[in-house]
Amino acid sequence: MEFDTIAAISTPMGEGAIAIVRLSGEQAFEITDQLFRSPGGKRIIDAASHTIHYGHIIDPKTQEVAEEVMVTVMRGPKTFTREDVIEINCHGGLVSVNRVLQLALTSGARLAEPGEFTKRAFLNGRIDLSQAEAVMDLIRAKTDRAMNVALGQMEGRLSKLIRKLRQEILEILAHVEVNIDYPEYDDVEEMTHVMLLDKAQYIRDELQKLLQTSQQGKILREGISTVIVGRPNVGKSSLLNSLVHENKAIVTDIPGTTRDVIEEYVNVRGVPLRLLDTAGIRETEDIVEKIGVERSRQVLKEADLILLVVNFSDQLTAEDENIFKAVEGMDVIVIINKTDLPQKIDMDRIKELANDHKVVTTSLLEDEGVDDLEEAIASLFFAGSIEAGDMTYVSNTRHIALLGQSLHSIEEAIEGVEMGTPIDIVQIDLTRAWEQLGEIIGDSVHESLIDQLFSQFCLGK
Amino acid sequence: MEFDTIAAISTPMGEGAIAIVRLSGEQAFEITDQLFRSPGGKRIIDAASHTIHYGHIIDPKTQEVAEEVMVTVMRGPKTFTREDVIEINCHGGLVSVNRVLQLALTSGARLAEPGEFTKRAFLNGRIDLSQAEAVMDLIRAKTDRAMNVALGQMEGRLSKLIRKLRQEILEILAHVEVNIDYPEYDDVEEMTHVMLLDKAQYIRDELQKLLQTSQQGKILREGISTVIVGRPNVGKSSLLNSLVHENKAIVTDIPGTTRDVIEEYVNVRGVPLRLLDTAGIRETEDIVEKIGVERSRQVLKEADLILLVVNFSDQLTAEDENIFKAVEGMDVIVIINKTDLPQKIDMDRIKELANDHKVVTTSLLEDEGVDDLEEAIASLFFAGSIEAGDMTYVSNTRHIALLGQSLHSIEEAIEGVEMGTPIDIVQIDLTRAWEQLGEIIGDSVHESLIDQLFSQFCLGK
Repeated sequence: MEFDTIAAISTPMGEGAIAIVRLSGEQAFEITDQLFRSPGGKRIIDAASHTIHYGHIIDPKTQEVAEEVMVTVMRGPKTFTREDVIEINCHGGLVSVNRVLQLALTSGARLAEPGEFTKRAFLNGRIDLSQAEAVMDLIRAKTDRAMNVALGQMEGRLSKLIRKLRQEILEILAHVEVNIDYPEYDDVEEMTHVMLLDKAQYIRDELQKLLQTSQQGKILREGISTVIVGRPNVGKSSLLNSLVHENKAIVTDIPGTTRDVIEEYVNVRGVPLRLLDTAGIRETEDIVEKIGVERSRQVLKEADLILLVVNFSDQLTAEDENIFKAVEGMDVIVIINKTDLPQKIDMDRIKELANDHKVVTTSLLEDEGVDDLEEAIASLFFAGSIEAGDMTYVSNTRHIALLGQSLHSIEEAIEGVEMGTPIDIVQIDLTRAWEQLGEIIGDSVHESLIDQLFSQFCLGK
Repeated sequence: MEFDTIAAISTPMGEGAIAIVRLSGEQAFEITDQLFRSPGGKRIIDAASHTIHYGHIIDPKTQEVAEEVMVTVMRGPKTFTREDVIEINCHGGLVSVNRVLQLALTSGARLAEPGEFTKRAFLNGRIDLSQAEAVMDLIRAKTDRAMNVALGQMEGRLSKLIRKLRQEILEILAHVEVNIDYPEYDDVEEMTHVMLLDKAQYIRDELQKLLQTSQQGKILREGISTVIVGRPNVGKSSLLNSLVHENKAIVTDIPGTTRDVIEEYVNVRGVPLRLLDTAGIRETEDIVEKIGVERSRQVLKEADLILLVVNFSDQLTAEDENIFKAVEGMDVIVIINKTDLPQKIDMDRIKELANDHKVVTTSLLEDEGVDDLEEAIASLFFAGSIEAGDMTYVSNTRHIALLGQSLHSIEEAIEGVEMGTPIDIVQIDLTRAWEQLGEIIGDSVHESLIDQLFSQFCLGK
């Protein structure tokens, strides 16, 4: 396919050492050639593929130097988009990179839409849709594990599985076709029924297995929403600091909400915890005061995991009991902190309150018990199985939905066969399952869906 | 010089399409070679200079794929640092780029300090100190003009001038040397005096000229701190929006202060306005309420320019008069807004209050008078002269200080000659002036100063 030439800033916005303006398309070389001057007079259109050149970007109208750059030249099809690609490496300031982008735009390029480079990689057949989606997951990955899942998907691990299943369905459909074409042979029908049931059940089992990974996949991708609760002075801040300091933390604002809702990602033995509302804890230790308040109820409701802290060296209060009540029915780890001080807590009552929840004792002051806590978190969510490593996880909500629909279609087909439904009705269900799987890899999707998917990408990718 | 191999993330932190890990030093190729696998088995150590290669970064311990990358190979001395340089282009996520950096570090690279790449370019003699400083100015530039000043300085425009002046001083010093070595020749001393006075006065004039540009240079670099004041409903928000919408705006939080102090950069005819506390205006129009409050007094004090808005269609109030009083002695432009409504304001009183300040009438609603306002701002700060374009601006505080010191030394030398001070005393002043100029380009600076200068850079540059 041939498209116009697009350009965008491909590095994050902000001050950095290097910023990149990327161009892709038929005119990428010609446009850059107008803007680039090398000290030796080398021209971009003459440059060999996959080489990098020092020089200046000039304004073709005024011939004034606009920026000092390194230009990377890559000829299609061995590029990210399969088209001709130019990457202009500028000094990493906002004005600098915007100026270069502007010159590219006034010289014939069009500003790329979010995700348009990856969309071209898809439209030009270099990657399928699930691989394209993995590119974005990779960028957004908050932990090593999430990144490994995305890398695996990007390299086509999921695509391969989906293609295999679709091939199986196609084979059944071919048999069904024979049956429909030659209905006079009774034994064909019988054979088809047996074979069909067998194959369809196999596909159903495979789909179920894939879907079973989806919960873990989603956790890997989005992190486990975690809230630390407890009354003042039980050590919530210490717990937070201990989790954050011992693990890589990434702090992000949640866009579109009030500024003080802050997410902090920590990686506990490969389990990505998304600590919610940690700003509140850090600054005022006041989340307990807010229990009963609408907002903190909401935060609790959104949580996948509650870390409930109580004081080993203090008697349980009504406040403690209320907190236990508020988190009933949720995934809770109870942390009895301050074991360095004399015991005053009633452990029997704690056991009653904790019920089935894990209980861990810590002295955060003396850095004791943190290992146990991390172990408890890891085992609660992965029960060891994720350690195995090399399996394919489905983590994308769209993929999970399509796998679910496809499973449903297959189950209807199986039911149909078992109830002796005419084979051409069963054929409809099978075809639907085949199409639904196709949507995952983008073999059968509407253009509007494609547009919508890529629009969630970041600019310049 | 030979250094160890350093590595850092050279793109801004955040989600983007591309992130770069840069390595520089003797071992850059060997380290990358351990980590890189190309599909065709190509090796980095065999790659030609200035080429780019597709492949994967693997963890050498586990042989697991860590990231899909493009690796740019550049052999010294034709590189940014004059050393061997490797740039690993990753998918632009935090985990992805951190993982690649970690692998580089565990394979023998050392984490670069802020500015260390540029420092090497300086230590290896590719650029001088003023050029190195310009690199950072370029990144931090908030307007086109500031960027042009930085570009000019980076290309050595200031360095060339400084070198020329130092050469002149050196020539005088040579003559003085002759005079000291052969004191028996009377006419040598006389000649030296005349020549010395002549040359020293020329150098003084040149230094003065350079210093005269420094005010404008500093404005270009840091922007003009601007505050919009006026009582509620006179149109402060409209003025702000009009300035922001007609010009490129860059919004930044001021780090280290409360979150709601926000800077907004707008570029008015090449004049960079740094609008302070605009968040307050936008959200509550309440800056007037705060006049008298410590914080807003502080904001006013820091301002280089006050845009004082009054209502054409309302009588002047005590509040208006207080505002005029609060900004006495500052650079003020008075904006009489809402000329689309019937006049109620007392223009004579306004003229009294405005005193020497420029007065502009606008109807922001009907988009009238904005041109006049922009004209007033531009002429207030540049008086047309900056339009000339191609001159050298001194914008760096360190450079300004050194130029001032050098000027002072030269003036002392001139005074000495005029007063008939012995020539070897004058020589001391001249030598000092020569050294002070040398510090600008880094010919005579202490290591600790160099360390301190580069530590202000951003990481990865």
